[in-house]
Amino acid sequence: MTRPAEWIAAKRDGRELAASDIADIVRAVVDGSISDGQLGALLMAGLLQGSTREETVAWTMAMRDSGRILTRAVGPSLDKHSTGGVGDKISLVLAPLVAACGGRVPMISGRGLGHTGGTIDKLESIPGLRTDLEIDEFEAAIDSVGFAMASAGPWLAPADRRIYALRDVTATVECVPWITASILSKKLAEGLDGLVLDVKCGRGAFMKDRTSARMLAQSLVEVARSLGCATEALVTDMDVPLGNAIGNALEVREAIECLHGRGPDDVRRLTLELAASMLVSGGLDEDHSAALARAATALDDGSAAERFRRFVEVQGGDPRVVEEPTRVLPSTDVVQDVIAGTAGTVVDIDPMALARAALSRGAGRARALEPIDPAAGIVIERHVGASVLRGDLLARVYGTLRPGEQSGELADAWVIDTRSGSASESVANTPGRHIVLEHIS
Amino acid sequence: MTRPAEWIAAKRDGRELAASDIADIVRAVVDGSISDGQLGALLMAGLLQGSTREETVAWTMAMRDSGRILTRAVGPSLDKHSTGGVGDKISLVLAPLVAACGGRVPMISGRGLGHTGGTIDKLESIPGLRTDLEIDEFEAAIDSVGFAMASAGPWLAPADRRIYALRDVTATVECVPWITASILSKKLAEGLDGLVLDVKCGRGAFMKDRTSARMLAQSLVEVARSLGCATEALVTDMDVPLGNAIGNALEVREAIECLHGRGPDDVRRLTLELAASMLVSGGLDEDHSAALARAATALDDGSAAERFRRFVEVQGGDPRVVEEPTRVLPSTDVVQDVIAGTAGTVVDIDPMALARAALSRGAGRARALEPIDPAAGIVIERHVGASVLRGDLLARVYGTLRPGEQSGELADAWVIDTRSGSASESVANTPGRHIVLEHIS
Repeated sequence: MTRPAEWIAAKRDGRELAASDIADIVRAVVDGSISDGQLGALLMAGLLQGSTREETVAWTMAMRDSGRILTRAVGPSLDKHSTGGVGDKISLVLAPLVAACGGRVPMISGRGLGHTGGTIDKLESIPGLRTDLEIDEFEAAIDSVGFAMASAGPWLAPADRRIYALRDVTATVECVPWITASILSKKLAEGLDGLVLDVKCGRGAFMKDRTSARMLAQSLVEVARSLGCATEALVTDMDVPLGNAIGNALEVREAIECLHGRGPDDVRRLTLELAASMLVSGGLDEDHSAALARAATALDDGSAAERFRRFVEVQGGDPRVVEEPTRVLPSTDVVQDVIAGTAGTVVDIDPMALARAALSRGAGRARALEPIDPAAGIVIERHVGASVLRGDLLARVYGTLRPGEQSGELADAWVIDTRSGSASESVANTPGRHIVLEHIS
Repeated sequence: MTRPAEWIAAKRDGRELAASDIADIVRAVVDGSISDGQLGALLMAGLLQGSTREETVAWTMAMRDSGRILTRAVGPSLDKHSTGGVGDKISLVLAPLVAACGGRVPMISGRGLGHTGGTIDKLESIPGLRTDLEIDEFEAAIDSVGFAMASAGPWLAPADRRIYALRDVTATVECVPWITASILSKKLAEGLDGLVLDVKCGRGAFMKDRTSARMLAQSLVEVARSLGCATEALVTDMDVPLGNAIGNALEVREAIECLHGRGPDDVRRLTLELAASMLVSGGLDEDHSAALARAATALDDGSAAERFRRFVEVQGGDPRVVEEPTRVLPSTDVVQDVIAGTAGTVVDIDPMALARAALSRGAGRARALEPIDPAAGIVIERHVGASVLRGDLLARVYGTLRPGEQSGELADAWVIDTRSGSASESVANTPGRHIVLEHIS
């Protein structure tokens, strides 16, 4: 039996792989001596037979070490990873905010596959802004601004690149150990001192229920800590869209609002929570409440916005976007209004209906490399908790339907309670709504 | 989700695939629209989650129909498949024997990977004999002789060709549904009316224990019958070598002995059992004992040997091999004697020790396409049940050790009971030994 066949047979039979075997497998992934067929079988065997925490640590470490690792610098290197959700533009606010508070944020992000683009797609809606930085440009940008945001280059965890591409087509994405190793191998290659994980939970998230979200959060926290990174995870609500904007340029505009101390309350509060966790993990604040207060100040006094302006400038974008986002960002004249058919209180909005509507207008991509329309998307005008009258504007939808796509009745995504004086249980943008469901630390 | 990913996810989650899905998968296997990575994941998911009998039938049918199917002719088309064991040369005797009794045997065989070659490798030790027949040559040879033996061409179950190659490197060989579909898709593409399966069981076989051999036999019988082929399986003993010869030309010589009504008793008896099963399944005999008697006559009166002679001639080989095998077949001067170190009764011979010794001298191949030495192998001189004196010849080993191979102490493979007058429990070549352990029908 060849070594790849032995590795597969061991996992097939439910045996634990030694860390040295996993290191050899990951080397074989990079040098091509394990074939796609073998890797597909191994990934499926691992999914069905499970992996111990020790195996997951070994996978993460070997995959992290399959490429280059950023050099540590003076001051704590901190980052956040989110499992993604509808309207999640937090990174765009969080990175400059933590930099403004003294952290160093080497944020490497992905492009999105799904309803809207990833952070990289969102950033690229800023005219001129480059995200394909070489590793030395990236490090220089961080040295200069305190943070930088770039797409993953071939230097970053190349083993994960091959494995992820194969997981994507072999129905082996949904597996806590594989998810953990994939996320952390890339994040820990940034040479981090502290990491916060935003594990989204709910209808609009990858993890639909609290149990599975908690399981992933625990795996991420334990594995990252085993590898020497101060780590905390927040399980956060993704049952309704986060903020009001969904779509690339629209989300950048909303993020800039938040950087000016304005913007939707849920986006601000979640950003501050994540920032506080990062600042405490990096030793920049004594405790969570001190960190929260300092972060809030950095949003309100313009210092976070100023960091963002310098970042845009250093990465080649038009820095006027910070003061005049509407003028600088791409926009479209194709707008469709979503109108309330009844009066009452908005008690629910289905995030996936909005996500599909945004995707069908080109805000995201259904297939890799598909071009996206940066101006396309949705802006919610009446979020959960709002009172509406019949005929009120619920949302505006931007962009042209892609060929073959159908426009559904988007107003159906809003659940309006018509009883007069009804108290909504879930209020998106009031202090009463719980966004952070759980801290895993 | 793409269709391949949906199929994989269904198997991953333990759901049953519809026959129409399986037909689509097999089409995708042939046209390449399912990738190696996806196929590897699917094969592993199927191995770990299992397949229902209905699914196995659908796989078998779709794989059978992925290529051409031999046309049915007058007279019942009958064949045998063996799961393989040490010294198994039965096909070489059985095919001409059944042809001599009025069956039509379109036997397509494989090359071996392991201790000795497959039937095709054995046949190719006959000078001039061609096994790479085109489909029309093959059918013409059967029409002329009553049987033919050829290697699988690209027309035969091409889906199995790709799937088997992938199973071989992904630790997904050992899976009853996959084994069933692989064996039967190829056999049923021969357009058979009747089939007998020789499921070997024991140390020298793929299936080591009775339970797993029975499980495979039942799966094979049920699936073949579902597809309209009269089928029986025999679970037969492979705890000791079958007959005395192990190695390609050596086995041909022993098979020819049997065709002349001589040869080791176990080879003769097993051949007759399998022949009787085939003849009854094809309606050529009323019952097993009548078929047994008729087959024994065909060995003893030379009619089976005459069929073999015509077969060799039609497929381009030297027909004198039937009368003068020692002169015609390749031989070697490199011979090593295995000598008894003690007196007593042979109570056991480890077939795998002999198999390894044969392989190390080039009788088989460890890797695909490796050349083999047709003259290499072993001839047992004292089989189980024989009395030996110290210094007696236990066996002769033919051929030169391959580079890097070591010659072990082969005499250790013989277990000799030194108690005087001990009765051996297992006697290979006496009528007392049970070769057929179980009939599955």
